[in-house]
Formats: sequence, structure tokens, C-alpha cells
Amino acid sequence: DFLAALEEVPPAFGVSEAELQQCVQNHIIPFSPHIEQILADGKLYVDQVRQSSRTPVVSLLVHGPAGSGKTAIAATIALESEFPFIKLISPETMVGMTESAKIAEISKVFNDSYKSPLSVIVIDNIERLVDWVPIGPRFSNAILQAILVLIKKKPPKDRRLLIVGTTTERNVLDQMDMADAFNSQIYVPTITTLEGIDIVLQQLGLFSDAERKRTMSLLSQAGMENKIAIGVKKLLMVIEMARQDADKIEKFVNTLISL
Amino acid sequence: DFLAALEEVPPAFGVSEAELQQCVQNHIIPFSPHIEQILADGKLYVDQVRQSSRTPVVSLLVHGPAGSGKTAIAATIALESEFPFIKLISPETMVGMTESAKIAEISKVFNDSYKSPLSVIVIDNIERLVDWVPIGPRFSNAILQAILVLIKKKPPKDRRLLIVGTTTERNVLDQMDMADAFNSQIYVPTITTLEGIDIVLQQLGLFSDAERKRTMSLLSQAGMENKIAIGVKKLLMVIEMARQDADKIEKFVNTLISL
Amino acid sequence: DFLAALEEVPPAFGVSEAELQQCVQNHIIPFSPHIEQILADGKLYVDQVRQSSRTPVVSLLVHGPAGSGKTAIAATIALESEFPFIKLISPETMVGMTESAKIAEISKVFNDSYKSPLSVIVIDNIERLVDWVPIGPRFSNAILQAILVLIKKKPPKDRRLLIVGTTTERNVLDQMDMADAFNSQIYVPTITTLEGIDIVLQQLGLFSDAERKRTMSLLSQAGMENKIAIGVKKLLMVIEMARQDADKIEKFVNTLISL
Amino acid sequence: DFLAALEEVPPAFGVSEAELQQCVQNHIIPFSPHIEQILADGKLYVDQVRQSSRTPVVSLLVHGPAGSGKTAIAATIALESEFPFIKLISPETMVGMTESAKIAEISKVFNDSYKSPLSVIVIDNIERLVDWVPIGPRFSNAILQAILVLIKKKPPKDRRLLIVGTTTERNVLDQMDMADAFNSQIYVPTITTLEGIDIVLQQLGLFSDAERKRTMSLLSQAGMENKIAIGVKKLLMVIEMARQDADKIEKFVNTLISL
Amino acid sequence: DFLAALEEVPPAFGVSEAELQQCVQNHIIPFSPHIEQILADGKLYVDQVRQSSRTPVVSLLVHGPAGSGKTAIAATIALESEFPFIKLISPETMVGMTESAKIAEISKVFNDSYKSPLSVIVIDNIERLVDWVPIGPRFSNAILQAILVLIKKKPPKDRRLLIVGTTTERNVLDQMDMADAFNSQIYVPTITTLEGIDIVLQQLGLFSDAERKRTMSLLSQAGMENKIAIGVKKLLMVIEMARQDADKIEKFVNTLISL
Amino acid sequence: DFLAALEEVPPAFGVSEAELQQCVQNHIIPFSPHIEQILADGKLYVDQVRQSSRTPVVSLLVHGPAGSGKTAIAATIALESEFPFIKLISPETMVGMTESAKIAEISKVFNDSYKSPLSVIVIDNIERLVDWVPIGPRFSNAILQAILVLIKKKPPKDRRLLIVGTTTERNVLDQMDMADAFNSQIYVPTITTLEGIDIVLQQLGLFSDAERKRTMSLLSQAGMENKIAIGVKKLLMVIEMARQDADKIEKFVNTLISL
Ligand SMILES: Nc1ncnc2c1ncn2[C@@H]1O[C@H](COP(=O)(O)OP(=O)(O)OP(=O)(O)O)[C@@H](O)[C@H]1O
Ligand SMILES: Nc1ncnc2c1ncn2[C@@H]1O[C@H](COP(=O)(O)OP(=O)(O)OP(=O)(O)O)[C@@H](O)[C@H]1O
Ligand SMILES: Nc1ncnc2c1ncn2[C@@H]1O[C@H](COP(=O)(O)OP(=O)(O)OP(=O)(O)O)[C@@H](O)[C@H]1O
Ligand SMILES: Nc1ncnc2c1ncn2[C@@H]1O[C@H](COP(=O)(O)OP(=O)(O)OP(=O)(O)O)[C@@H](O)[C@H]1O
Ligand SMILES: Nc1ncnc2c1ncn2[C@@H]1O[C@H](COP(=O)(O)OP(=O)(O)OP(=O)(O)O)[C@@H](O)[C@H]1O
Ligand SMILES: Nc1ncnc2c1ncn2[C@@H]1O[C@H](COP(=O)(O)OP(=O)(O)OP(=O)(O)O)[C@@H](O)[C@H]1O
Ligand SMILES: [Mg+2]
Ligand SMILES: [Mg+2]
Ligand SMILES: [Mg+2]
Ligand SMILES: [Mg+2]
Ligand SMILES: [Mg+2]
Ligand SMILES: [Mg+2]
Repeated sequence: DFLAALEEVPPAFGVSEAELQQCVQNHIIPFSPHIEQILADGKLYVDQVRQSSRTPVVSLLVHGPAGSGKTAIAATIALESEFPFIKLISPETMVGMTESAKIAEISKVFNDSYKSPLSVIVIDNIERLVDWVPIGPRFSNAILQAILVLIKKKPPKDRRLLIVGTTTERNVLDQMDMADAFNSQIYVPTITTLEGIDIVLQQLGLFSDAERKRTMSLLSQAGMENKIAIGVKKLLMVIEMARQDADKIEKFVNTLISL
Repeated sequence: DFLAALEEVPPAFGVSEAELQQCVQNHIIPFSPHIEQILADGKLYVDQVRQSSRTPVVSLLVHGPAGSGKTAIAATIALESEFPFIKLISPETMVGMTESAKIAEISKVFNDSYKSPLSVIVIDNIERLVDWVPIGPRFSNAILQAILVLIKKKPPKDRRLLIVGTTTERNVLDQMDMADAFNSQIYVPTITTLEGIDIVLQQLGLFSDAERKRTMSLLSQAGMENKIAIGVKKLLMVIEMARQDADKIEKFVNTLISL
Repeated sequence: DFLAALEEVPPAFGVSEAELQQCVQNHIIPFSPHIEQILADGKLYVDQVRQSSRTPVVSLLVHGPAGSGKTAIAATIALESEFPFIKLISPETMVGMTESAKIAEISKVFNDSYKSPLSVIVIDNIERLVDWVPIGPRFSNAILQAILVLIKKKPPKDRRLLIVGTTTERNVLDQMDMADAFNSQIYVPTITTLEGIDIVLQQLGLFSDAERKRTMSLLSQAGMENKIAIGVKKLLMVIEMARQDADKIEKFVNTLISL
Repeated sequence: DFLAALEEVPPAFGVSEAELQQCVQNHIIPFSPHIEQILADGKLYVDQVRQSSRTPVVSLLVHGPAGSGKTAIAATIALESEFPFIKLISPETMVGMTESAKIAEISKVFNDSYKSPLSVIVIDNIERLVDWVPIGPRFSNAILQAILVLIKKKPPKDRRLLIVGTTTERNVLDQMDMADAFNSQIYVPTITTLEGIDIVLQQLGLFSDAERKRTMSLLSQAGMENKIAIGVKKLLMVIEMARQDADKIEKFVNTLISL
Repeated sequence: DFLAALEEVPPAFGVSEAELQQCVQNHIIPFSPHIEQILADGKLYVDQVRQSSRTPVVSLLVHGPAGSGKTAIAATIALESEFPFIKLISPETMVGMTESAKIAEISKVFNDSYKSPLSVIVIDNIERLVDWVPIGPRFSNAILQAILVLIKKKPPKDRRLLIVGTTTERNVLDQMDMADAFNSQIYVPTITTLEGIDIVLQQLGLFSDAERKRTMSLLSQAGMENKIAIGVKKLLMVIEMARQDADKIEKFVNTLISL
Repeated sequence: DFLAALEEVPPAFGVSEAELQQCVQNHIIPFSPHIEQILADGKLYVDQVRQSSRTPVVSLLVHGPAGSGKTAIAATIALESEFPFIKLISPETMVGMTESAKIAEISKVFNDSYKSPLSVIVIDNIERLVDWVPIGPRFSNAILQAILVLIKKKPPKDRRLLIVGTTTERNVLDQMDMADAFNSQIYVPTITTLEGIDIVLQQLGLFSDAERKRTMSLLSQAGMENKIAIGVKKLLMVIEMARQDADKIEKFVNTLISL
């Protein structure tokens, strides 16, 4: 039965660990308590899949503003499950494929997962996978329909699956009846406090401690306390740009203020 | 004639019992008297097909909110008919097929059914079969037209057919002139009473009797009596999530309240 | 010349009698004087085609609400002409064909008819033949254009043709400039009197005479006299459903009232 | 030069006389002085093509209500030119062809015409040739563009061409910039006087003289004098229908009144 | 270098002189001083291409009402340049080609031009080349994009190119961002004075001097002085039509007045 | 590691220097201090790519009015980086390709760049690459989606990439969610001062010093000081046109005033 099947699977079967590791290249910096809460929730869903036979498929939509860290978080949940089958479906590996080749690829990942007792599939950047563009609007209905069906499809007996999707366009997915097709949703916020900025700066080592304090006080004087709302990915970019400049503090502070 | 033809058919011809059984994996829990009434009505239609030669094809649309149990009920009606030919047409087995391959598959099921004196065909999730999406809106008109024609097509002499469709989007099917093409319609409701919740909890064994009573009283205190409206499928998901948590009662009550 | 040509044709050439007979499976029940008038008018058009060389093609659009009996009436007019070539063009035989295959099939029927001195072609359910759906709206313009041209095309010398189309969507055909392309139109009404219901009940033998009288009086008491409007096809369905029930009268009356 | 070239052409080259004759099957009945004026104008254009080397291509759009006699008039102008090349382009010979096959066929007629010193091409029913339908609206832009270019294209040196198009949809052709592409336009009216009706009746011999007079007086009493507007083609149809009836006068008068 | 390359080209390479000559079949009649100014401006652009190495590609859009003489003027500018490569791109030679064949043909002309040190390409009737129709509106975006890119593409080193486009639909090209892609624009007017008409009449020899004077005085009396606006091409057509009539003056005057 | 990989690359690998040089054919004339600032900013981004391993891909959108010099500036930034891989993606080399061939070509450039430790890709004229036209509007969603994914795709380990896009249609790219996909944006202005015009005139040597002064004073008297807004590319065209004229000053001044 289920436990027996679990043992038969060679541990490394179907893991795309390298690709997923690359998504957390700059680690998960705990810039606010939300981040820890999100990862804890993720573990609960992993447990449900591992233990309940009544809900063999559980699906989770990770959404939030551009650059807020959705992909890194989805990858972290997937990697920490240590399930024998962990796969990433991403538009980046499908550039230039025809619509039907993309659907075949997506289907294959699901069919492969049905061979493992426990699986996680990360579907990254769903709006891009379905070729969404707001002008028109236009999108690939064929890919959309395939995903809609696959995330609700029950795996065969004694097979269990966690699906983690990510998107910047939750409203769009809502209008496509896709948000509803997920069992749960997790919101990933931007950094909205100076403390959050401070934590990231500390981690990245752009400034000495003195410089960092000056920076924070400059931002505070500029009244940024209640105005800040920057994705962690964008913040990393600003930090690296500032690093090239002669006057790093000025560059960093000015860029943040002018956003 | 008809009775002779009936005897010639090998009993197991054309039954997709396994697939249909999987649709009622968690059984039909009688959480309200409606459920029994629905199954009784279903039997009447089965009888009409079995006995009246003037209406060789009878069609039935099972509709209701997402997760209310439509597929499980359609499968149950079909399985209980014990007709020699029972088939499921479902988008889940057609992911990635071209439009014309899908139409060929659907047609084939109907043509196969014409070889049996008595048949049931379940057409599950019609809005997904026709690739419906509200943005645009878009859908496959070719598949739609094929279904529109097939559900009204008369079987050959001495052949009789019951068609059971399911959908979450009755309004959409109405606009597509499809709702009219069905002879009758059955509405499957969500659970709208605390008693309904209680019955399901009892069946699933999440709590001891004492815990269940506490849970019900907490929900009652929270004024949920008049607010509840949850599909049985969603309720099963909430129960299984709560089962993972340290404090099952709190998790269950809070999740229901926050829906 | 024409009479000579008429004699040369083998009597049974090109008749699709079986298919057309199936369309009048439950006969034409004369539930109102309109029905007889319609059939008499149909005969006049048949005569015109048979006798006038100045109008070698005459076309007739049979329209009315869903289930009012349009197909049965068109089939009856065609069969009673006893012309050597009688053919049915129906969406039911074209499920899953490509647009161009459908056009080829339709064209072929017309070209075949040109080989017979006298022909009738029934084009059933035109809105379905052209894949009409109100959402969009969408339809096959290629099939539409083919039909538009074919129903006005003059047959070769000494060949005469009656075309009988049917549709539920006269307004749509109007907007498509197709209603205008027909020379005449016949409206098929629903049953709008209790007398009409009574006649049909009598014919179908659902009740004993006493039961039938009780039924009519119940309907009358319920004030249905001025509210009734049911297609004969739907009425047949209601009668057959009631036949399965323990209390046939109650089931029949309640169903009619709740329509 | 031109006259030499004219002599070289075998007289019967490229005439589709049979098809065009069929278009005037019921002759041109001179029901009003307009009809003679139209045919006289047609002759002027024929003369211009025959004689002026400065305008090697002249095009003429014959438009008017459905059934007013446009095709018969265009065919008459073409046949009376007695040019060595006279061809009919009609949707009736192109049913079921692909868009590109239709364009190839149309092009071929023009290219063939360039081999004759003097040619007439009748393009019948242009709105149908371009697959026009008001819903959408939709039409074949590829065919439209081909016609737009061909009717303005100059023939090779010493080749001259008259193009006669017909359409019921002059407004549509206007919106398509096609009406402008024709050098001149001729309007074909319906019959709008009782005298016109009388002339046609006389010609068709439906009634004895006495019957005809009674008919006219009945129409006059019914106040039809100022209301009549019927295409000659429709009138022929009404006459032939009346011919089948026991009471021809009543049928004819009632049909005209109820139009 | 450039001058050397110029000498190597055989004089007649790539000239489509015959086709262009045909476009000026009826010559350029100088009906107003504007016409001379337009041709002088055209020469300036030719000079710039011949002499400035900083602007290796110069493009010119000739626009104006239908029949105002745009094609004749573009052809004249091209022919008078006497550049070694002079080509006409015209919808008339592309009837029935696929979109991609048209693009290949257009591209080929440009690529051929890059082999000549000095080239002129006339792109006639751009709205027709891109299959423009105002209903929809519809057009070939693929052809449009190809032209948009090609008219701005820099020729290889030491190659220079003048592009002369013509269109009746300047507003449309504006909305397509194509008008902007041309470096300059020239407007070709209709004839708007009686003097202009007089000059053309004189040239065409329709009337004796006395007749012409009478004609002009009739037009003047009819108050046409301030109302006239006729393309030279249309005027030629009217003159040739009048030539067939018994009363040439009346026909000519009446036609002009009734325009 | 990274530095080692850098050494292994043959210096000239993958540079499309000739094409890029052609884009700066008329050099970069420093007509305002902005121009120098833009080039300095460009260098900062080049440095970030060269030095920071945390942001392996940096993307920059150069936008501004038509002819303001965007392509020349993007080419200059790319060439001055002296990275081993420098490539231009331009619609000019893709005329007549199918959508999928264009995507394959674009993908190939990115995949090739991943073989070099340091790369610059210039994507010129993005609105044209995606076949944008405001009527409709229409564009190639497939090409758009490919670019959207490729500019955010992370290169493999130890590979770094600078992407410089150019466009006249920043608002359009915004609506396509593409402007957001770039990390930074640079605006290239038109010339808006008489000093700017003066600098360009001086560089191009159209006038003697005296003539230039007269020209500037004429422009000043005409009140052009506050009205000027001309792209440097257009200004070069005006200068070269004026060069052909007998009265260069008048031509130049009049053209500028009449813009
Ligand atoms: N707390 C955090 N949460 C998420 N990512 C973090 C966090 N701290 C640091 N990071 C780093 O920030 C980056 C987040 O980028 P990521 O691609 O996950 O964002 P995204 O929201 O998916 O962006 P996009 O909207 O473009 O898809 C990663 O490099 C990750 O290592
Ligand atoms: N009374 C009931 N009616 C229907 N299903 C029930 C009932 N009691 C328990 N179930 C279980 O609940 C689940 C209902 O899920 P089902 O897929 O039928 O819902 P659905 O309405 O078809 O959902 P969807 O809208 O997603 O198609 C099944 O697992 C079924 O066994
Ligand atoms: N008076 C009648 N007129 C027509 N049909 C009748 C009449 N009396 C009985 N019938 C029976 O009623 C049925 C009418 O069905 P039919 O398919 O012709 O209806 P329809 O209007 O074509 O339906 P639909 O709108 O679905 O195409 C047939 O079985 C026919 O035998
Ligand atoms: N004066 C007339 N003008 C035209 N046709 C006439 C006239 N008198 C008699 N006819 C006859 O009337 C018929 C006219 O039909 P025709 O097909 O030309 O009409 P139409 O306007 O082309 O119709 P549609 O709008 O359907 O294309 C022909 O059979 C023709 O012989
Ligand atoms: N001054 C003139 N300018 C242009 N054409 C003239 C002039 N005088 C005479 N013509 C003659 O008039 C005709 C003009 O026709 P042309 O095809 O050039 O017009 P067009 O504006 O291109 O028409 P269209 O709008 O249909 O393309 C030619 O035959 C030309 O020889
Ligand atoms: N300061 C400057 N900035 C940019 N280009 C300059 C400058 N000075 C001179 N030039 C020259 O001006 C021309 C600018 O043309 P370029 O094609 O770069 O403009 P563009 O904005 O890309 O035009 P388009 O909007 O048509 O794409 C080039 O030939 C370049 O050499
Ligand atoms: Mg992401
Ligand atoms: Mg279901
Ligand atoms: Mg019918
Ligand atoms: Mg006609
Ligand atoms: Mg022209
Ligand atoms: Mg540019």
C-alpha cells in the first residue's frame, strides 16, 4: 500500500533541485515575522499531503507584488518537503515552444508525479505561462484550460501531490476562474518598514555599521517610514547599484526616495 | 426486439466503473434531506429510459456551486442504473488533445452507446470540456456544437440513452443555448446548516463526541447558524487540514469562520 | 423534355425515407386547426414546384419555438410530395466534420438533386448547421454563405427543387440575411389551449377517460387556460415522465404548472 | 494595332452565353420607362469601351433592392455588347471553394479577358462573393482586396474591358471603399405602380383580360396605389404561386396586400 | 568608393520603365501651378539622395484624394531621376498571393535595390498593399510591419535609396504610425478651378474652341466656379464618356454638375 | 570560476560590431549636458554587471521620441562596454520571418550570450519587433511573451548579462507589462534649445560661421526659442535637404519653422 510504495522510490527520483536552488540564490532574509509565518504555513500543507488519504491533492497559490519573493518562497517550501518528486514548471524553459508543446510538457510533469507516492510541483509565474497580456486582453486559453484541469485532477490511488503556484496577477487568475481552483492562497508582502530595510542591508554587507545607521537616519528624516513598499528583489538590485557608486549612501538613499 | 437485444449484451460491456467509483471516493453523506430527494429523482429518470419507447433519449443537467458534490451525485445515479453501458466523459482524460480529437472522443462514446440497448453517459464539468473562460469570453465553439447536437440526437431504433451532465456555470450554458437542450435540471446545494456540518464531522471522525459538541457550540456562538454555505468538498478539505494542527478545534472553527 | 426526364428516373432514387420517417416517430397529432392549415400550405408549394416552369426553385422556412414540431412537419411535407429525390441535411450526421467537409456534403446533396426532375431537400436546424452560438456571437460564415448561395441557385434546365428549412432562431437568420433568401415562411406554434393538451393526452393513452377528465379539470382550476404554451415535443416528454410515477395525475399536473 | 487584334480573335472566344442567358430566363419586361433608360445607358458604356483608347477599363455598379432584376439587366448589357469575350463571375459556381481558389478563379477571368481586345466581365452578387454577413460584420477581406485591385487594374496595351458588378448592398460596398472604385453606378428600382404590375401580369398570362381588370381594381380599392414596392422577381414568384390556387385572383391580391 | 560603384552598374539594371510609363499614359497636364511645384520638389529629393552621404535613405509620401494623379506623379519623379535602379511595387502584380509571398516580393525589391548605388522604389497604393478595409477595420499587419521596417532600414555602405509611396488614406497611415516613418509628404490636389478644367479640355481635344468656350460659360452660369473639386483621372473619364454622346456639351456639363 | 571563464573567451567572440557602428554613423553630438549624463549612467550599469555577482542580469530601457537618438545611444553603451559578447537584435534583420522564426532567432542570441562570462544584448525598436500597431491594437503576443521571459531569465552560474532595449512607445510597453520588466529606464530627449541646434549645425558644417549666426538670429526672431523640439535624426535630415537648395539659410529656417 501507500507506505510500501513510498519505500520503493529511489530517493533522488524526479527532483529538479538545481533549478529550485537557483531561485533562492540570495537566500530568504527574514525581514519581517510574516516571512516565518508563511514558511510555517507551507509546512502544514506539506504535512496534510503526507498524512491525509482523503485529500490526495492539495494546491496553494503564492501571490504578491512583483519582486516580493514569491518564487523564492515557493521553491523553499518545495525543497523543504523532501518529497521524492519535486519539479519546477517555469516559462523560462519553454521560450519559443508551441502552445501544444508547452501543454505536453506541463502534462508530462503531472503524469511523472503520479508515479511517486509523494510529489510537489511548483508552477512558477502562471500569468507568463499562459502568455497573459493586459492589452486585448490576450492569453493562451489552451494552456490555461490544461492547468485548470490538472490542478484539480485526482492522482491515482495511493499517490499524493502538493501543487504550489506563483503569480503577480491574482486578479487576473480570479477572472480566469483559476484562483478558485486552488485550495488555499498565501500573500507575500513587500518590505514596508525601515526595520525591514535595515535587516536586508545588514545581511548584504553594503555598509559598515556606522554607514548603515546614517543611512537609516537619512531615510527616516526624509519621512520614508510610512511610504516604503519595495519588493526584496528590487531592494537587492538597488543595493548592488549603489555598490558601484563613489558615494554609496547618497546613491542608495536617493534611489529609494525617488522610487 | 428491445428485450431480446437487452439479453444479448454481455453485462460488463462499456462500463467505466473504476473511474466513476473514484468520483465517490468519500461516499455520499446525507447531510440534508435534499440529497436523498435528488437521488430518488435520478432513479425516476433511469426508469423512464428503461421503460418508455417514446422518449428514447432523456437528458439531465446536474448544476450547483463549486464543490457541492455534483460529480459524485452524477456518478452515483449512473452507477446505480446498472445499465450495460455506463461511460464518463471528463476533461481530465483529454488534457492536451486538439479540439478535433476531443470531438472524436466524445462522438465515439455516443456511437458506442448506440450499440447497447440501455446506456448512461456522464458528461462531467461541461464548462471545462468546452474550454470556457469568462475573459473574452472564450470557449471552443466546435466542441460546444458537437455536444449540443449529440445530447438531442435520437439513438437508433430500440436503443435508449440517459445523459447526465454536470456544471458549475449554469448561466453560461444558458447563454450558449445548452441548458435548454437538456430535458431536466437538478440543483445540488451547499451545506447551509450547522446540522449538516455536524453530520459530516460525525462521519469523518475528526473529533471525539465531546470535541464535536464543543465545536458546534463555538460555531453557534459565533453566529454561523445563518451564514454557513460551504460545499461538501471544501468541508472535507477543511477537516483534513484541521487534522494536522495541534489544536484541531480552533483550526477548524477559525477556518470556517474566516471563509 | 421535362415529362420525359421525369419518367426516366427510377422511383426510389435518392430518397432518405428512413431518416425522415424517424423524425415523425410520434406522428403528427392535429392538436389545433393550424396544424392542418400548415400541411395544406405545404402541399401548395409542392404543387408549384411540380407545375410551374418559371420558378424552378421554391424555398420555405419552417420556424417556431423549440420543440414545437418543426422537424416533424418539414419531414411530413417532404415525404408527402412523393418526389423522386427527397433528402435530409441535418447537423446530426455531421458531428465532428470540418467546416469544409460539411460544405462539401451540403453541396453534394444539391448537386445530386439537380439530377432529378423533381426534388425536395430538408435543411434541418439551420442555426445548428451554421454552428450558431449567441455568445460572441459566433457561427461558421463559410457554411452560412454556402447555404445562402445554394438556396437561391437555379437548378439546370428542366430540373425543379423545393427546399424546406427549419429553425428556432428566425431572428438570427434574419440578421444573417438568410430569412430573406427564402421565398416563404411558415410559423409552427406551441400548444396554447387545454383542448390541445386534451387531444394529445387522448392520443398517447396515458390516462383512462375518467383520469383525463380529472386532469383537465385540475389544470382548469389552476387557471392554466390562459397560461399554457408548451411545445408538443416537451409535452410528450412530460407525459412519459408522468407515466413512471405512482401518482400519474399529480405528477403530470404539477409538472405542467411548474413549467 | 487595336483593330488588327480585334480581327484575330475567333468570335466565340470566352463567351459564357448559356449561363448569362439563364439569368434572363423570364426576359426583361419593360414595366416602366426606367428600364429602357437603364439599357440605353448600358449601351453608352459599351460604346465608350469600344471607342476610347484613353479609358481602357470602364466599370459600372448595378445596384438595387433584392429581386429588382439587377442580374438580368447586367446580363442583358453584357450579351448585347457582342464583345468577343463575355464572362460571368458568380458565387453560385464557387460554393465550397477555399478563399484562395476563389481568388484564383476571379483572377483567371481577368487575365483571360486581357487576351481579347474587347471584353465584358459581369461580377454578380458582390456581397455574396466576398462572403458578407452583417453579424460581426464578417466578410472575406482577401477576396474583397482582389476585386478592389482587379476592377481598377489597367489592361495591357490595346486591350479594353467593361466590368459590370451587381449588388443589393451598396451601402456595405461603400463602407468597403468598393462603390468608389467603380466609375459609374446604375440604380434598378422595384415596381412601384399598379401600371407596372399590370404590364407584368399581361406578359405572364396569369389572368384573362377580365380577371386582370378585376384584380387591378381590387388592388386599387385596397389603396395599394401608393404602397406598392415589389421586385419583379418576387412578383413573378407571387404570380406562379397564385396560379396553383383554386381562386387565383384572391390569392394574388391577398398575397400582394399582405407583403 | 561611391562614384566607382556608380560606374560599374549597367545602365538598364533593374528599371521597370514599361510599367511606370503606363502610369503616365495620359501625361501630366499642368492644370495648375501646384503641379509644377510638386515636380520641382520631387527633383530636390532626388538630388539629396544623389549627393548627401549622411542621409542614405530618403522617403516621400505622395497623398491626396482618389484619382488626383498620385501614381502618375510618383512615376514621373522616379523616371526623371534616371537612377540605375527604378522599381514599382504595386498591389496589381500581387493579386492572389499569400501574405508571406507579398512580403517576400517587397523585400526582394529592397534587397535588389541595395545592389545599385542609386535607386528609386515606388510603393503604389499602400492602403491596398496592406489590404486595408475600414470595416473592422482590417488590414495585413505582417505586410504593414515589413513596409514600416523597410522604409527606415539603412542601405549598406555606399548605397543610396529614394522611396516614393502613394496613398489615398493618409489618415489611416497616420494611425498605423506609417505616415511618421516617411521623411516628407507631398499633397496632390484635385482640380478646383474652371481654368484647370479648361486646360485639360484643351489638351484632350474633346471640343472645338467655340464649343469649349460655350461649355466654360455654361459651367460658370451654373455657379460651378466655387464648387468644383474633381480628380484629373475622373475628369478624363467624364470627357471620354461625353465623347460618345450625341450632345457632347450637354452630357459633359450635366455630368460635372451632378457630381 | 568567473575570472577564469572570462579569460578563456576569445576577445572577438560574438560581437556584432559592424552593425552597431552603423547605428552611430553620424556620431554622438553632445548637443546638451543630458547626453553626457546618459552615457555616464550607461557606464554605471556596465560596471554593475561586471562586478556584482548578486545581480547577474541587469536590464535598461532607452526610450524617447522618434528620432531622438535612442538607437545610437544604446549602441554606444554596448560598444563601450568592451564585453566579449555584444549583439544587436533588430527588426531590420527579421523582415518576412515567421513569428516562430523570429522567436528562435531572439532566443538564440540569449543562449549564445550565456556562453560568455560578460555580455550585452541590444534589443532595438521593441515595438516593431513585436509587430505593434495602434489600430486594433495588434501585436505578436508570442514574440512579446518570449522577450518578457528572456529579459528576466537568470543566466547560468558565473555568466552575466546587460540588456539594453530601445522604444518610442514606452506607454505601450507599460500596458504590456514590459516596461516593469526592465530594471531601469533612461529617457532620451529631443533638442529643445537654439544652442543645441547651433552645436549640431557647427558639427555638420552646413554653413559658414557668418551664415550660422544669421540663421540662429533668424530663428530667434521667429520666436523659436521656446518652441523647438526636434529629434537629432530629423535635424540631420533637414540639414541635408537644405544643403541641396540654392538658398540654404532660407530653406533651413523655413523648414524648422514649419515643423
Ligand atoms: N524574505 C525573502 N523572501 C523571498 N525572497 C527573498 C527573501 N529574502 C531574500 N530573498 C531573495 O530575493 C529574491 C526574490 O526574488 P524572487 O524571484 O523570488 O521574487 P518574485 O516575487 O518571484 O519576483 P517576480 O515578481 O519577478 O516573479 C531571491 O533572490 C531571494 O533569494
Ligand atoms: N452528499 C454528498 N453529495 C456529494 N458528494 C458528497 C456528499 N457527501 C460526501 N461527498 C463527497 O464529497 C466530494 C464531492 O466532490 P465532487 O467532485 O463531487 O464535487 P463537485 O461539485 O463535482 O466539485 P467541482 O465543482 O469542483 O466539480 C466527493 O468526494 C464525495 O464523495
Ligand atoms: N402536430 C404535430 N406537429 C409536429 N410534431 C408532432 C405533432 N404531433 C406530434 N408530434 C410529434 O412531436 C415531435 C415533434 O418533435 P420535432 O423534433 O419535430 O420538434 P422540433 O420543433 O423540430 O424540435 P426542436 O426545436 O428541438 O428542433 C415528433 O416526435 C412528432 O412526431
Ligand atoms: N424589367 C426587368 N428587369 C429585370 N428583370 C426582369 C424584368 N422583367 C422580367 N425580369 C425577370 O425577372 C427576374 C429578375 O431576377 P434577377 O435575378 O435578375 O433579380 P436580382 O435583382 O438579381 O435578384 P437578387 O437580388 O436576388 O440577386 C429574371 O428572371 C428576369 O428575366
Ligand atoms: N497633372 C496631372 N497629374 C497627375 N496625373 C495627370 C495629370 N494630368 C494628367 N494626368 C493623367 O491622369 C491620370 C491620373 O491617374 P492616376 O492613376 O495617377 O491617379 P491616382 O491619384 O493615382 O488615382 P487613384 O487614387 O485611383 O490611385 C493619369 O492617366 C495621368 O496620365
Ligand atoms: N547626441 C546624439 N544622440 C544620439 N544620436 C546622435 C546624437 N548626435 C548625433 N546623433 C546621430 O543621430 C542619429 C540618431 O538616430 P537614431 O537612429 O539613433 O535615432 P532613434 O531615436 O533610434 O530613431 P527612431 O525613433 O527612428 O528609432 C544617428 O545617426 C546618430 O549618429
Ligand atoms: Mg517569480
Ligand atoms: Mg465536479
Ligand atoms: Mg427540430
Ligand atoms: Mg441577382
Ligand atoms: Mg494611384
Ligand atoms: Mg531607433
